Amino acid sequence: MDYQVFDTTLRDGGQREGISYTVADKLAVARLLDEFGVGFIEGGWPGAMPKDTEFFERAKTELELRNAVLVAFGATRKAGVDVTEDKQVKALLDAETPVVCVVAKSDIRHVERALRTTGDENLNMVRDTVRHLVANGRRAFVDCEHFFDGFRYDPSYTASVVKAAFEAGAERVVMCDTNGGMLPSMITAAVNQVAELAGVSADQLGIHCQNDTACAVANTVAAVEAGVKHFQCTANGYGERPGNADLFAVVSNLQLKLGLKVLPDGCLEKATRVSTALAEIANIAPDTHQAYVGAAAFAHKAGLHASAIKVDPLLYNHVDPSVVGNDMRILVTEMAGRASIELKSAELGLDLAGHPETTTAVTNKVKELEAGGWSFEAADASFELLVRSELPGAGIPSPFTLESYRVLVEHREDGKVISEATVKLRVEGERIIATAEGNGPVNALDEALRVALSNHYPQLKTFELTDFKVRILEGSHGTNAITRVLLETSDNRGEWTTVGVHENIVDASWTALVDALTFGLAR
Amino acid sequence: MDYQVFDTTLRDGGQREGISYTVADKLAVARLLDEFGVGFIEGGWPGAMPKDTEFFERAKTELELRNAVLVAFGATRKAGVDVTEDKQVKALLDAETPVVCVVAKSDIRHVERALRTTGDENLNMVRDTVRHLVANGRRAFVDCEHFFDGFRYDPSYTASVVKAAFEAGAERVVMCDTNGGMLPSMITAAVNQVAELAGVSADQLGIHCQNDTACAVANTVAAVEAGVKHFQCTANGYGERPGNADLFAVVSNLQLKLGLKVLPDGCLEKATRVSTALAEIANIAPDTHQAYVGAAAFAHKAGLHASAIKVDPLLYNHVDPSVVGNDMRILVTEMAGRASIELKSAELGLDLAGHPETTTAVTNKVKELEAGGWSFEAADASFELLVRSELPGAGIPSPFTLESYRVLVEHREDGKVISEATVKLRVEGERIIATAEGNGPVNALDEALRVALSNHYPQLKTFELTDFKVRILEGSHGTNAITRVLLETSDNRGEWTTVGVHENIVDASWTALVDALTFGLAR
Repeated sequence: MDYQVFDTTLRDGGQREGISYTVADKLAVARLLDEFGVGFIEGGWPGAMPKDTEFFERAKTELELRNAVLVAFGATRKAGVDVTEDKQVKALLDAETPVVCVVAKSDIRHVERALRTTGDENLNMVRDTVRHLVANGRRAFVDCEHFFDGFRYDPSYTASVVKAAFEAGAERVVMCDTNGGMLPSMITAAVNQVAELAGVSADQLGIHCQNDTACAVANTVAAVEAGVKHFQCTANGYGERPGNADLFAVVSNLQLKLGLKVLPDGCLEKATRVSTALAEIANIAPDTHQAYVGAAAFAHKAGLHASAIKVDPLLYNHVDPSVVGNDMRILVTEMAGRASIELKSAELGLDLAGHPETTTAVTNKVKELEAGGWSFEAADASFELLVRSELPGAGIPSPFTLESYRVLVEHREDGKVISEATVKLRVEGERIIATAEGNGPVNALDEALRVALSNHYPQLKTFELTDFKVRILEGSHGTNAITRVLLETSDNRGEWTTVGVHENIVDASWTALVDALTFGLAR
Repeated sequence: MDYQVFDTTLRDGGQREGISYTVADKLAVARLLDEFGVGFIEGGWPGAMPKDTEFFERAKTELELRNAVLVAFGATRKAGVDVTEDKQVKALLDAETPVVCVVAKSDIRHVERALRTTGDENLNMVRDTVRHLVANGRRAFVDCEHFFDGFRYDPSYTASVVKAAFEAGAERVVMCDTNGGMLPSMITAAVNQVAELAGVSADQLGIHCQNDTACAVANTVAAVEAGVKHFQCTANGYGERPGNADLFAVVSNLQLKLGLKVLPDGCLEKATRVSTALAEIANIAPDTHQAYVGAAAFAHKAGLHASAIKVDPLLYNHVDPSVVGNDMRILVTEMAGRASIELKSAELGLDLAGHPETTTAVTNKVKELEAGGWSFEAADASFELLVRSELPGAGIPSPFTLESYRVLVEHREDGKVISEATVKLRVEGERIIATAEGNGPVNALDEALRVALSNHYPQLKTFELTDFKVRILEGSHGTNAITRVLLETSDNRGEWTTVGVHENIVDASWTALVDALTFGLAR
């Protein structure tokens, strides 16, 4: 590849408030990014963050990459310390990645005020660190922090950092808009000036943009148009403050709008799926309005043009949605089209090809349920149960029959709040009554259900409720609104998500709970 | 103003999935946009949408604008119809706005395939409609739909639409990137070519960008840099698919990065407040990562640089957050700094200047509560109650003392789900027990509380719960997680929001309910 697609979701992306990856999460993210075809995966800062150290350690045996190489991120050596004795630099080598990316100060004000050293010593820190990495067989990239602010304030000092890095053997020097204040026209001008002042070609430079002017994607594209061939992005734009340049939008723009080949063949089509999967791992709701990959990216409200759109969809879409693995939606209720029902079922291993009547029945059921506030987009397990119930011979019997349940929440005189649930069920002919407490109504119901079923289904013990999401629909009706509950359940072999909808939050949760147990027991 | 800031939140922004403004909402949005200093507020499509017709009707008497003029949006006359007999055009005049903006087809393919008429008739439709509007005393703007795609496909036809509009007396012709597929460099090139081919000056043109390449803000800025002086945006970028160019980012970029004056003095500082208020009205969670105005736009994760940031904040922020009415946050727990507590209290009319001990007490309390999952950002009423409880002489007595409550949710044998709540209270010495049903546990509690208090506080009848939001915090613990509830209550004079947090969703709701009634009764 002529272009270096450098992903820093695992390092800079983790700066976003609310993201906290486990090591297993990081390995899963790396696999997805590799599948999407990025060339470089910056995995973290070994030595500085224990989780990152462990990630690089486990990556040595657990991560097989086809498209990407792994990058360890760190800093130049400390001021006044010999590079061979700098522990942080040693940790970078211990990560045993083919590429190391070190951050360097390139704004003289930051050198003097934050680093509290001299401009010359900073240049030595860059040279020593790069030489040491190269001498140890690493490809060295240098991230110049606060590059554009520094370049505006003192162009010659910032250019001297670029020169020092290249003299010492750096493969790429990356211009970082750390504070995110640039506009595309400023990027274009700066790239040309930097190349001239530092005596380098633009294609030796890299770009890293933050989104503080809402221009990170455009700034990255502008740098590439100015000749830069290395760009750093994060999946879905995750990052500190308003985030980083979104990998999916940048790559889609470069390939589809400028005709540049930046990913291996067959990868761009994975954008939507990879984006959604990465959002799930980050535990952040997918942005339905994200460019290219959002669920609404190609959604058209029904209107005067609906029929025209059907005849000539390309006149109403800036690209064919399928090139980024997305779909066009014309009406919300048309989401549940036969084609998507069949596709989704096939994904779950259920072939509906020979069962048009099942497809019809499921499509009608889903339409009806979606009109009532249900959503199966994130609840594959509930969807699978629904399809199976309509597919001859594939049904999963319910593990029990409900007679009734009762949940009590009491705020007592002493201020203590208790929740207690009683369920009355029939399991294989036996009538069971069980009561349990919990720290909320849903937890109490879950506990009571487990007590009731424990003799017949001991494997229930391995099930754990790992996430519980509540969404109130039609919020303008206050507490009369409909409630949609998403439950994520896991056992030692994986996880599954179920959905329930009801005007009563407890009953919505109950439906999702029952689906979760039914699905889990049948796995 | 040299520049025309044209807001279309109420028209194009309403295309976003999930937004559904009432007429009262639309009036409130218009007031906020006017306060923010936009020059033009496109209010909707009178005649086509009954709600929009009503909006313009009520605006005549209920809307006093200081900065903006109101714009009615519509289409050119129908093909083959005399403009004076076109009902849709008549409805535009009936709206009695100083400005009318009509959409015209400018891509010959859309003229022929969607409109099913000829290129010549389309030009006549533009000319006739603009002449008719001008003859009736209106300033006429023409939105050229699918402008850039059309211009690429058949530059001379698209340019002929521009010429026709100006010949007929249009004040501005707006280039709309309807499918949203442009990049900034393409905008720059197109603006220059269009101006030349149509024989007009760039400053007669307008720009309207959609965000399908994640470049709507950058594209708008690029057009302005190329000489365009009219730009159409929506608040928070609301709009179809990935949305429109975000008003706040565009205006901030133009004023703060390019030094252009596009808003009246003192308006940009309102950006953060207006953005949040508009999100509330649209019933969309504010995007905490939005450029300039998001709660996290200037948030720095604590790290090596925390002390450096404190010494020299401007080295770490691309602009001073206060110029857009935002705050810098260094640590999440530092959100509740003394300064912001005092500022927020002052906003609510509580002067803490002479009460350092109150500020200390409130700051500590808020820090402690925020660490436990509370958030007062959207719950001014609860925050005010908290401040008042610490401010000598300002406290609001609770309207009752709780002895206990009990909520029962029962799923009966016949499948019916019932919710029933009993509250035991003391009101002015009297012990009251009341029971009520509801369609969920919170609704039942609310009803029981109203029954119990109805004799002492008959004004409770005017209170209505208008929104109920539930957020589960620390989702990795499943149903053991903490629940945060936000309640919006309104009466005939306004609305207020309260918050409650508890591991039990019912008790979290109870806290918010009690605050809502206490605050409402004291107003």
